[in-house]
Amino acid sequence: MKRIGILTSGGDAPAMNAAIRAVARKALSAGLEAYGINYGFAGLVAGDIHKFAAADLDDSIDEGGTLLYSARYPEFAQVEGQLKGIEQLKKFGIDALVVIGGDGSYHGALRLTEHGYNTIGLPGTIDNDIPYTDFTIGFDTALNTAVEAIDKIRDTAKSHQRVFAVQVMGREAADIALWAGVATGADAIVAPGHDYDVKEIAEKLKRNRVDGKDYGIIVIAEGDANSDAAPEFLEKLKQYGDFDARAVVLGHVQRGGRPTARDRVLASKMGAYAVELLLEGKGGLAVGILDNKVQAHDITDLFNAKHQPDSSLYELNQDLSFK
Amino acid sequence: MKRIGILTSGGDAPAMNAAIRAVARKALSAGLEAYGINYGFAGLVAGDIHKFAAADLDDSIDEGGTLLYSARYPEFAQVEGQLKGIEQLKKFGIDALVVIGGDGSYHGALRLTEHGYNTIGLPGTIDNDIPYTDFTIGFDTALNTAVEAIDKIRDTAKSHQRVFAVQVMGREAADIALWAGVATGADAIVAPGHDYDVKEIAEKLKRNRVDGKDYGIIVIAEGDANSDAAPEFLEKLKQYGDFDARAVVLGHVQRGGRPTARDRVLASKMGAYAVELLLEGKGGLAVGILDNKVQAHDITDLFNAKHQPDSSLYELNQDLSFK
Amino acid sequence: MKRIGILTSGGDAPAMNAAIRAVARKALSAGLEAYGINYGFAGLVAGDIHKFAAADLDDSIDEGGTLLYSARYPEFAQVEGQLKGIEQLKKFGIDALVVIGGDGSYHGALRLTEHGYNTIGLPGTIDNDIPYTDFTIGFDTALNTAVEAIDKIRDTAKSHQRVFAVQVMGREAADIALWAGVATGADAIVAPGHDYDVKEIAEKLKRNRVDGKDYGIIVIAEGDANSDAAPEFLEKLKQYGDFDARAVVLGHVQRGGRPTARDRVLASKMGAYAVELLLEGKGGLAVGILDNKVQAHDITDLFNAKHQPDSSLYELNQDLSFK
Amino acid sequence: MKRIGILTSGGDAPAMNAAIRAVARKALSAGLEAYGINYGFAGLVAGDIHKFAAADLDDSIDEGGTLLYSARYPEFAQVEGQLKGIEQLKKFGIDALVVIGGDGSYHGALRLTEHGYNTIGLPGTIDNDIPYTDFTIGFDTALNTAVEAIDKIRDTAKSHQRVFAVQVMGREAADIALWAGVATGADAIVAPGHDYDVKEIAEKLKRNRVDGKDYGIIVIAEGDANSDAAPEFLEKLKQYGDFDARAVVLGHVQRGGRPTARDRVLASKMGAYAVELLLEGKGGLAVGILDNKVQAHDITDLFNAKHQPDSSLYELNQDLSFK
Repeated sequence: MKRIGILTSGGDAPAMNAAIRAVARKALSAGLEAYGINYGFAGLVAGDIHKFAAADLDDSIDEGGTLLYSARYPEFAQVEGQLKGIEQLKKFGIDALVVIGGDGSYHGALRLTEHGYNTIGLPGTIDNDIPYTDFTIGFDTALNTAVEAIDKIRDTAKSHQRVFAVQVMGREAADIALWAGVATGADAIVAPGHDYDVKEIAEKLKRNRVDGKDYGIIVIAEGDANSDAAPEFLEKLKQYGDFDARAVVLGHVQRGGRPTARDRVLASKMGAYAVELLLEGKGGLAVGILDNKVQAHDITDLFNAKHQPDSSLYELNQDLSFK
Repeated sequence: MKRIGILTSGGDAPAMNAAIRAVARKALSAGLEAYGINYGFAGLVAGDIHKFAAADLDDSIDEGGTLLYSARYPEFAQVEGQLKGIEQLKKFGIDALVVIGGDGSYHGALRLTEHGYNTIGLPGTIDNDIPYTDFTIGFDTALNTAVEAIDKIRDTAKSHQRVFAVQVMGREAADIALWAGVATGADAIVAPGHDYDVKEIAEKLKRNRVDGKDYGIIVIAEGDANSDAAPEFLEKLKQYGDFDARAVVLGHVQRGGRPTARDRVLASKMGAYAVELLLEGKGGLAVGILDNKVQAHDITDLFNAKHQPDSSLYELNQDLSFK
Repeated sequence: MKRIGILTSGGDAPAMNAAIRAVARKALSAGLEAYGINYGFAGLVAGDIHKFAAADLDDSIDEGGTLLYSARYPEFAQVEGQLKGIEQLKKFGIDALVVIGGDGSYHGALRLTEHGYNTIGLPGTIDNDIPYTDFTIGFDTALNTAVEAIDKIRDTAKSHQRVFAVQVMGREAADIALWAGVATGADAIVAPGHDYDVKEIAEKLKRNRVDGKDYGIIVIAEGDANSDAAPEFLEKLKQYGDFDARAVVLGHVQRGGRPTARDRVLASKMGAYAVELLLEGKGGLAVGILDNKVQAHDITDLFNAKHQPDSSLYELNQDLSFK
Repeated sequence: MKRIGILTSGGDAPAMNAAIRAVARKALSAGLEAYGINYGFAGLVAGDIHKFAAADLDDSIDEGGTLLYSARYPEFAQVEGQLKGIEQLKKFGIDALVVIGGDGSYHGALRLTEHGYNTIGLPGTIDNDIPYTDFTIGFDTALNTAVEAIDKIRDTAKSHQRVFAVQVMGREAADIALWAGVATGADAIVAPGHDYDVKEIAEKLKRNRVDGKDYGIIVIAEGDANSDAAPEFLEKLKQYGDFDARAVVLGHVQRGGRPTARDRVLASKMGAYAVELLLEGKGGLAVGILDNKVQAHDITDLFNAKHQPDSSLYELNQDLSFK
């Protein structure tokens, strides 16, 4: 193995650049060459590929987004698309790849491995929705962005005795909502996997008023592609009481920004580990962190698994929130 | 004059606490007593009033929201409401007041002055929409919150070659949009007082793609009570081209948070100045900063005037944005 | 058991308030009463103790410092001091305690347990220097503060082609230095447990210049009580080359500030877990997080152990830094 | 005039990049060409000059440091150095320049104008120490960095009943100290131009303890090249009382970081205005903001003037601080 290619795929996430840097620098340290592939699998097929010098990665560790860009490319699900990509790999002499992205990009990684090009997947997504890893690259930053926003919203909630329903990202995963809910002391968390009773939440908010807390914060997971989860929740809530309530949809701010220290270190560890796996001749693996140890599992195992959020947080929040 | 009352009214704004602290501490320094009135004019009428000790204001200068709370109270427009308030002032021996809030609270301030209770208004609102002042208390913080959010959104815009229409607050005022647009290098600003041509913006975004910038940021003022300004803009934009475009409504995060240094100092200066005016036996005045000098104008003058944003920023942004 | 006492001891750390809140709220949820003890063991002996209502802990989860204050009190090492403390516990009817603090406070926790008052220790310190836990409460926040500061310093380093030696906290522990070094892509890390050769670092910085990076960042652990570690390093470095080099000692900013999401959640989990242990009739235990699971160990075990930082980070940084 | 050159000189300051962008983009908008000159006057003499395309300035508005780098070059005070610089201007066909930097760079700007190359100076320095302008580019960001740091330090001060002497930058100017002191509610400000009595400060801190505030923050200007202003102050303070006191020297973190909105807009306005002046055939002018209006004065006038900080802040802080 002489040349490693790197691409990012799916939604961008903070610290993807730290992961790109780690893969490339570790490759250079090991005497290999590193190639950046722009625009994900689309760029692979198009041959939008360039060699990395060490200096190219300088000062990228603290930047949001992905310097390799990302793009959707459903055509890579077809063999035809894959073969075109392989043609480019041959042209550039690339022997192995690291793909940074969400669940979807792992299919491409597996196909390339099957075609003889060992490929390792890194979990780059703010949603934390990938099996066999406790944390994905970007989750910690997105979580902190959500928490900082909710802290600000609480200033207004408190000043005006209002209830705010704050919708956070995470697609079908509950992770950002659960963590942000605990971290901001939310009065309730509404998230997939946890049934809730609007009336009960309304009763709690009313009891809080009596007991000395006349405002409320409810953290709402966006759930499955529902961009109106918070406004819809409020509609229901208002049926059970006369709340001065507002919905805030935090939106895309959660995707960008300077990565936290935790995300940078996680991305650095995972990137270097991916290169080690390739050096051992392995492919078709997805890197994760489990029990605080970076490790890898077969991508095929991931397809049969489902990410489990830390559900203990739900109950913890119920124990700790005001009542 | 022996006792000064302080209340906050209307929407909360960062550094309102710094203003409360400044009024109270300046009053104490001048040998007066300071009384906090909770929940704005509603609390005045209800007699929710307490004496401030110096220690009560410690460590409040860096906190968002208002420690005196705020509440709507349209009843104060009626003489009956005002007389009830005056009864409370008599009861607590309060001779004069400082009211911190938006345009609306100045009416109450004027009525109290007419009833013989000198009252000074301070411009506390993120919207910067008050006449006779270049800056309101809270504007700088809200602006920075918006700018930081747009910086984050740009990471995703760039990674995915997308166009984002980002809606900022400001009610009918264009100030946050104009300043945030310049500060983030927006491709276009859509704000009251400035006609725009959607087709022209679409053409610019398409030219940018050709010239080397394949993403875009458009900052949209919420305009007059339109909570869907950004989504509506996008609908129109998409008629003129095939953009991968998203709307983000920044929302209530802009109201809260730790105030910036600028807002804290402005609030401190204005609060102290209000007490000086009261010590001179003046009332019915609104404090502002014009030509970088804190000064006061008759509240009645404000009612006949309209806030003018710094419109030069619009043209400046056109000159400096990518093209 | 009916009443749980809570105190903070040793240096303050971000999210100590989140831990206090978690202990108190969990106790209230379990039908117990919670008492705050001000000023650590000194306040225990002095009887500076107050009952917590749920509302007392509202809006504390996002604040730095400790609302229970902290103070040194070496007298608690003596039986006499301990007995005075126990007298107060009897007076207030407190049956069990949670002590949040560094290594030192665990001795007090053990003594109280031996006297029949079950006490659980929580690791609250930015230094991450406690055995049997991968992370302490406050470490993540301090780390991010250090990383943000170094990001800023890099702007100047790059603009002026300078070398900066940045000294971070951590007492005798290398953790902040190792993590911050990796997270900022430092050119070198100087930390306890890792020998270094000044000449080698100087040579690397000179090679970097030739290879296209004409500035440098070296992260220096303060080491054992050496407040001049960075300036002293620079003196040595300058013997090996003509560097435009500056030292920055980050100092106490690393102790304060709003806790990160990670620290808030960790503190919340640990605080609730401590109450569960007390409910099970246990004492003399120190709570930690190992393998991403909150768990407890005998305090006596901690005394015979030494915290091990994640030394793999040192080598990782060497692989990934510019060269 | 066809081609404008841009360089940065002296210490770097946040929003210098926003100023570079503004000059270049405004020049392009006016149909001119813009050239970046690396490493200040040193790079001018060396001919390290490159043409700017619009895309080169994309996404620079939010970055700290200077993308044109900076360097000391005392040789430019000599005619010989100046003539070498002019040779390069001829070679690249540059007709006029904008120089962004501190006081020192204005001398170079004046010399170039005298040689027939109209040059405009922009005030780029965190110190705010330039005459004929109320604010310099970078001051607002540095101020906010200092204020955020002091906010954090207060958490520890309060938790441990300590006194902190926090040294801020500003060279011989008092501006950062005065503004940061007011913005953080400091117990005292020690700054050039304002005599102080250590004993009086010590007495105040002792009175505060009695009155309910048992910690203290004193903001210290670094004064004229004294890197130990804060530690030296503490030595004196301790002669007047038994304070648990610490010194923190904030240092270079104040120079870098993402510029605030205010700094970005100020830099944008000033940069565009400089080009307008050049288009009018003017040179030898220094741009400033006075009375909230961007304007220009003869550089020679600046040499005979001295920057005056807003001294009213000193008295304001005395009125508002705890006592």
